[in-house]
Amino acid sequence: MGRWEPDAVGRLRTAALELFVERSYEQTTVADIAERAGLTARTFFRHFPDKREVLFQGSERLEQTMVDALLQTPDGVSAMTAVATAMGAAGSYFGDIQAFARRRRDVIAMNAELRERELIKLAKLSASLADALAQRGIDAIEARLAAETGMAVFRLAFDLWLADGEHRRFDAIAADLLRRLARLAPGA
Amino acid sequence: MGRWEPDAVGRLRTAALELFVERSYEQTTVADIAERAGLTARTFFRHFPDKREVLFQGSERLEQTMVDALLQTPDGVSAMTAVATAMGAAGSYFGDIQAFARRRRDVIAMNAELRERELIKLAKLSASLADALAQRGIDAIEARLAAETGMAVFRLAFDLWLADGEHRRFDAIAADLLRRLARLAPGA
Repeated sequence: MGRWEPDAVGRLRTAALELFVERSYEQTTVADIAERAGLTARTFFRHFPDKREVLFQGSERLEQTMVDALLQTPDGVSAMTAVATAMGAAGSYFGDIQAFARRRRDVIAMNAELRERELIKLAKLSASLADALAQRGIDAIEARLAAETGMAVFRLAFDLWLADGEHRRFDAIAADLLRRLARLAPGA
Repeated sequence: MGRWEPDAVGRLRTAALELFVERSYEQTTVADIAERAGLTARTFFRHFPDKREVLFQGSERLEQTMVDALLQTPDGVSAMTAVATAMGAAGSYFGDIQAFARRRRDVIAMNAELRERELIKLAKLSASLADALAQRGIDAIEARLAAETGMAVFRLAFDLWLADGEHRRFDAIAADLLRRLARLAPGA
């Protein structure tokens, strides 16, 4: 029971996603997930507070990664450049978890509670980026505008990244969208 | 019971907001709302499917107003100009309901289910604007980028419009943010 389980988190996550796809999120219990992973429910609860967090646990680390990257940009860079840097850090964070992220997206799409949770997590990420920009001395309204716009690009880049047949990295897609945005902006 | 009730919708909405603020959304029943408005529960249900819709019923009409305005822009206008036009139409739709909208915001902020519903309504509005842009012949990715960016501006404009001491109209605030966005966009 108490022994060390190599990559318990990864095994639990893979087992959970498999079961959510096979049986639906609602019909899967923590006991099912632990059994599929060859672990105990106790081990599950050492790593996740509940089954929902298997899908959302990465969000806090993603947020921290993006905020740290934004805060480390040199003094004097523009708000949108700082946001673009945060987006690049998200790309490194995501790496090659595309297959996991696609399954996760499909599971979330099928459950209203999960869809709502995802939206709230993204809203929180936007607020944290705005706070970080304001800490950098950016005017409060400009900070929110840049963070919200950046998150609009982020969400769209994320969707495109998970589309069938997409082979570019997340940060390449985000950078392309930011370039398009510069051309789209009214008066630009 | 069946007789004509002058401005039943307005009276029910006002009564509901008062009670949600006084007793909380959770502790208010449809019977309470009808009683406060001097109407019957039956009249309530003729106008709203449930108490939650008192807060969200306007969303469909807002969406239709914005989509119609977008579709009626002249051929050849840019995606962001079309979105800016939709935002102007939202401003006319909102008019001077600021006091109602402030109370509504406060009620929604106190309840997770309502916050989630609000986020989902806004996501749906963004998707509808993107569809309308695509109908206008805008490239699908550009359409989504413009719609999502427009909605980022929309949400921020809405927040600012409801801030204490703000006296500008919604569309004036939105237009100001769109101008700031043009200056913020990377490479602009």
